[in-house]
Amino acid sequence: MTEALAHASEPCRQPDEGPDMKPLSMSRVVVVGLGLMGGSLAAALCGRCKRIIGLTRRQETAAEAKRRGLVDEGTTCPADALHNADIVVFATPVRTILRQIDEFAQHLRAGCLVMDVGSTKASVLEAMQKLPEGIQPLGGHPMCGKETSGLEGADPDLYRDRTFILCPLSRTSRSALRLGRSLVKTVGARPLLLDAQRQDDLTATLSHLPYLMACSLIQAAHATTSSDPAAWRIVAGGFRDTSRVAGSDVRMMLDILATNQAAVLESATAFRAAFDHLVDLLKSGSEDAVEALLTQARTERRRMYP
Amino acid sequence: MTEALAHASEPCRQPDEGPDMKPLSMSRVVVVGLGLMGGSLAAALCGRCKRIIGLTRRQETAAEAKRRGLVDEGTTCPADALHNADIVVFATPVRTILRQIDEFAQHLRAGCLVMDVGSTKASVLEAMQKLPEGIQPLGGHPMCGKETSGLEGADPDLYRDRTFILCPLSRTSRSALRLGRSLVKTVGARPLLLDAQRQDDLTATLSHLPYLMACSLIQAAHATTSSDPAAWRIVAGGFRDTSRVAGSDVRMMLDILATNQAAVLESATAFRAAFDHLVDLLKSGSEDAVEALLTQARTERRRMYP
Repeated sequence: MTEALAHASEPCRQPDEGPDMKPLSMSRVVVVGLGLMGGSLAAALCGRCKRIIGLTRRQETAAEAKRRGLVDEGTTCPADALHNADIVVFATPVRTILRQIDEFAQHLRAGCLVMDVGSTKASVLEAMQKLPEGIQPLGGHPMCGKETSGLEGADPDLYRDRTFILCPLSRTSRSALRLGRSLVKTVGARPLLLDAQRQDDLTATLSHLPYLMACSLIQAAHATTSSDPAAWRIVAGGFRDTSRVAGSDVRMMLDILATNQAAVLESATAFRAAFDHLVDLLKSGSEDAVEALLTQARTERRRMYP
Repeated sequence: MTEALAHASEPCRQPDEGPDMKPLSMSRVVVVGLGLMGGSLAAALCGRCKRIIGLTRRQETAAEAKRRGLVDEGTTCPADALHNADIVVFATPVRTILRQIDEFAQHLRAGCLVMDVGSTKASVLEAMQKLPEGIQPLGGHPMCGKETSGLEGADPDLYRDRTFILCPLSRTSRSALRLGRSLVKTVGARPLLLDAQRQDDLTATLSHLPYLMACSLIQAAHATTSSDPAAWRIVAGGFRDTSRVAGSDVRMMLDILATNQAAVLESATAFRAAFDHLVDLLKSGSEDAVEALLTQARTERRRMYP
């Protein structure tokens, strides 16, 4: 079922089979950035590939990942880490990925599979398109996360049973895509092939908009209620859940918003229209119309999460 | 700590001690309405009072509650249930409570404690104020719920560790308030005395606004993404949590919105201003300002839920 759906949504392309790739179990894998996403990915891959190397900016992070057994090796030197890598996965904030793809390209060997786990894909694929010929690019976006950022939150089960979007370019070979899929399945996730712009449009509504809403709810509550000590005792489950993603990592979210601005603004406009319409109905006192709308929303929510 | 805070937010009043009330363990308690809230309350009180009676509209619900051991007795006859009740708790939707307080008043004996668990309080207290002299009114609002409505979701632990707002009237005696507090603590909740209008203003922002947001998010997503089968596979945790309360019982929510309209519209206006401001900043590309706002929201969210 997973496979069938994934194929159904695969963009129209007939990629070459391409040169053989080593299986994952024989591959040296470099994870760039050992925050929540990278640290969790390394932890899930450790022992399932030939060698897993964490490439970080800070020496302490590399040492801590090694100490915790999340990587076979931690380093801050791109040349050392990358020169004989079979797979490189970028797990830094999106705009850092864009910069690193450009900077690290010189160290990559031909035949290397280059992936990422950034939340927006059009800009990343644009950068990947410029990689030297022979490098195999494959954009990725796993649908998971936590509010706790950083290596301390790393969890080998973070990817388990989550959808992991994969965005190949037309230059990506079939064998490279197979290896990417294999990595995704090895960490317990479900691959879903998707066109990059389509993924960016969908996640604008399903992920980035909820973040803007949550932050705005916190702002509104701050202005109207935080002066009242009773507010702290009556924040019920509805507020907690609706505001949860406001706790997300700001650096990561800024990069997402910057690299998906048009789609995010479009989804914000759609949301505002829906919100204004509902508020107008409430004001007009047309209870039948309000009831119809709320019932529709409830039915739809239950259809999405049975 | 709980007690100290509760006293700190107690409205200014010097109520009479009033006639002695039977302790809860000696009281006949009638719960009006055996949906999620009433059924859970009955289940939590069963065995902790002299007798717990469920008064419902449908005979099948009364029989089912009795069969499941949630009540000592189930009935559809108000006169039978109420004539010798020591405590009556209304657990129907708010506008039904307003009607029932008026209709059932004739059956209540002097000295009876009349409570409710409706989500808005100003209109309920207005109705309670009209109860015959000698009846002891005490508005209530427990900060808990589930998306699953109805008796089938009844859970004796629903109230455990939740804040339970209590709104006495000036006519409410100290001994009646003590009995109400005792009931709240018996079901495991934490009483918080609050002025009715203040509770309605606070819950407009902390509870009713998140509901409107969640419904509007579902509407926006429906319009923009539901035609895409991939959307169903990438709905991540952010969307699930932000939209959760859209699954709430519509009848209950309609009554809440109707009886708290002014405060709800005010909180909607505050939210829209915050959302528009954030979207304007995104459009203008002033990233430092966006970052400051998102960081403030994150800090505030973490302060609320450490």
